[in-house]
Amino acid sequence: MAFRKFLPLFDRVLVERFTPETVTKGGIMLPEKSQGKVLQAKVVAVGPGAVNQKGNLQPVSVTVGEKVLLPEYGGTKVSLDDKDYFLFRDGDILGKYVE
Amino acid sequence: MAFRKFLPLFDRVLVERFTPETVTKGGIMLPEKSQGKVLQAKVVAVGPGAVNQKGNLQPVSVTVGEKVLLPEYGGTKVSLDDKDYFLFRDGDILGKYVE
Amino acid sequence: MAFRKFLPLFDRVLVERFTPETVTKGGIMLPEKSQGKVLQAKVVAVGPGAVNQKGNLQPVSVTVGEKVLLPEYGGTKVSLDDKDYFLFRDGDILGKYVE
Amino acid sequence: MAFRKFLPLFDRVLVERFTPETVTKGGIMLPEKSQGKVLQAKVVAVGPGAVNQKGNLQPVSVTVGEKVLLPEYGGTKVSLDDKDYFLFRDGDILGKYVE
Amino acid sequence: MAFRKFLPLFDRVLVERFTPETVTKGGIMLPEKSQGKVLQAKVVAVGPGAVNQKGNLQPVSVTVGEKVLLPEYGGTKVSLDDKDYFLFRDGDILGKYVE
Amino acid sequence: MAFRKFLPLFDRVLVERFTPETVTKGGIMLPEKSQGKVLQAKVVAVGPGAVNQKGNLQPVSVTVGEKVLLPEYGGTKVSLDDKDYFLFRDGDILGKYVE
Amino acid sequence: MAFRKFLPLFDRVLVERFTPETVTKGGIMLPEKSQGKVLQAKVVAVGPGAVNQKGNLQPVSVTVGEKVLLPEYGGTKVSLDDKDYFLFRDGDILGKYVE
Repeated sequence: MAFRKFLPLFDRVLVERFTPETVTKGGIMLPEKSQGKVLQAKVVAVGPGAVNQKGNLQPVSVTVGEKVLLPEYGGTKVSLDDKDYFLFRDGDILGKYVE
Repeated sequence: MAFRKFLPLFDRVLVERFTPETVTKGGIMLPEKSQGKVLQAKVVAVGPGAVNQKGNLQPVSVTVGEKVLLPEYGGTKVSLDDKDYFLFRDGDILGKYVE
Repeated sequence: MAFRKFLPLFDRVLVERFTPETVTKGGIMLPEKSQGKVLQAKVVAVGPGAVNQKGNLQPVSVTVGEKVLLPEYGGTKVSLDDKDYFLFRDGDILGKYVE
Repeated sequence: MAFRKFLPLFDRVLVERFTPETVTKGGIMLPEKSQGKVLQAKVVAVGPGAVNQKGNLQPVSVTVGEKVLLPEYGGTKVSLDDKDYFLFRDGDILGKYVE
Repeated sequence: MAFRKFLPLFDRVLVERFTPETVTKGGIMLPEKSQGKVLQAKVVAVGPGAVNQKGNLQPVSVTVGEKVLLPEYGGTKVSLDDKDYFLFRDGDILGKYVE
Repeated sequence: MAFRKFLPLFDRVLVERFTPETVTKGGIMLPEKSQGKVLQAKVVAVGPGAVNQKGNLQPVSVTVGEKVLLPEYGGTKVSLDDKDYFLFRDGDILGKYVE
Repeated sequence: MAFRKFLPLFDRVLVERFTPETVTKGGIMLPEKSQGKVLQAKVVAVGPGAVNQKGNLQPVSVTVGEKVLLPEYGGTKVSLDDKDYFLFRDGDILGKYVE
């Protein structure tokens, strides 16, 4: 697994976006243009956290495996093992889905 | 309920805007253009708060269920269970209505 | 009273501008264009104050009922019970009138 | 006296500019255009000072009655009792004249 | 070795980019235009770290020999012994590859 | 002396620029255009220093009488007793000449 | 020596750029246009360091005589005894060459 071999630095979080829905509920195939941008993602790796002004490590607020809501813009695309992931700063992630 | 399953991060507050009035007091239907932008909203979920410079958590200043006044601009629209909510930073919420 | 039901957050101050003079000292009616912008206002509600870097609450420097001088620009208009009020940050209020 | 009734907030200083010279040393009347902008002013009221990051009040560095040198730009004109005064931040005042 | 003789200052990290692939898996030579920008690099020298607000040295988060992922933009090209290296701030390096 | 009567505030330093050379070493008069901008100046008055974040006074790093090197741009011209002086922030002065 | 008489203030570092190579290894004279910008320099004087937020002096990270690598842009040219030197902030110097 790619996320095993890559460790984000500081407060960066590596996420994998969910795949957009390509078929409507009624069964009709959606062209790529009509597929919405997917803002939901799964956390696959987290950095150790940023160092605050007192010199202490501030851990990130999400953990590997959690499902998060991403902001519409921002993030850095990184390719690991021919698969696309995205790096977001911990503070830019909007929220997480809890059961 | 959607807000049960979504947890905003840091000092973000998830609100649900009140529905605009579609009928005047005199009973006349208002077209969508004439319906004012609704700045009043109900808090449906709050983040744990931001971490201040001393590394301590600073809780948000509103609680779930409170009726708040939103600024005219800003906020991030998020769709949860096909319903529109808005995320605001705690510090951007103008005030709250108390009984 | 509207200000009873609305609580500004953080260091925000809710003020009610004084009504512009519509008649000159000599008794002549002033058209709306000639009425100056009123920068004097009465404080009707104050927030609990902003939280400083040490995590302590810094109370606002004005109190309800005081007459203050507003800056010419800035402030957020809010309508409460069909009456216009303005929200200013405590630090943006220029000064206050004391007896 | 106007400055008795007005109290600047935070580190604001209320000053009264000196009147520009309207007659040359040789006795010739100066038209208004030729009268230089007066940067010297007398302090008529001072705020209690700004609150620093430790939450302590930092008093302003000038006192009522002192003659100060103003920067060429900046300051906020305020009218008190039909007389023009100017509000400057304490830190924007360039210096003071001492005997 | 060049990196032995050059010591980056503060939180700067000297890296050597990996060489772009010039032959496809199928054995076809790639023209220079088709060679992707290489974002993977090896750390060849690190600064002592930046000094934080408390006056203490904050060591950098990577060590010599580690394989890191660079951001697409930024970095300063430096030539040492006719070979190109790049200086990045520690905080700008996206992550590192661990075995 | 003018600098006796004027006290700069905070970390401001009052300097008097040296007069530009108007004659070349060979004895030729220089027109005003050819006279270089003089960046060397003598300190004539210093402020008490700026207040740092801990609320303590940070004295300025130059003293009255020292010869300093000014930056090419910046500084505020002030006229005292019909003579031109310049105010610079302590941190903007590039260096000083020591014997 | 000029650097004996000039003391940079705060965290400024006075450097002397190395002279560009004017002859190729093969012995051909290089026109001025073809001579590269020299980014290597020798430290000739250093300031006492900047004062950090705790009010303590933070010494600069280079010492007189060290060979440093300058950034391509920035720095302030100063002429001392008809010779050109450059002032850089300590934090802008990229690195130093160690034996």
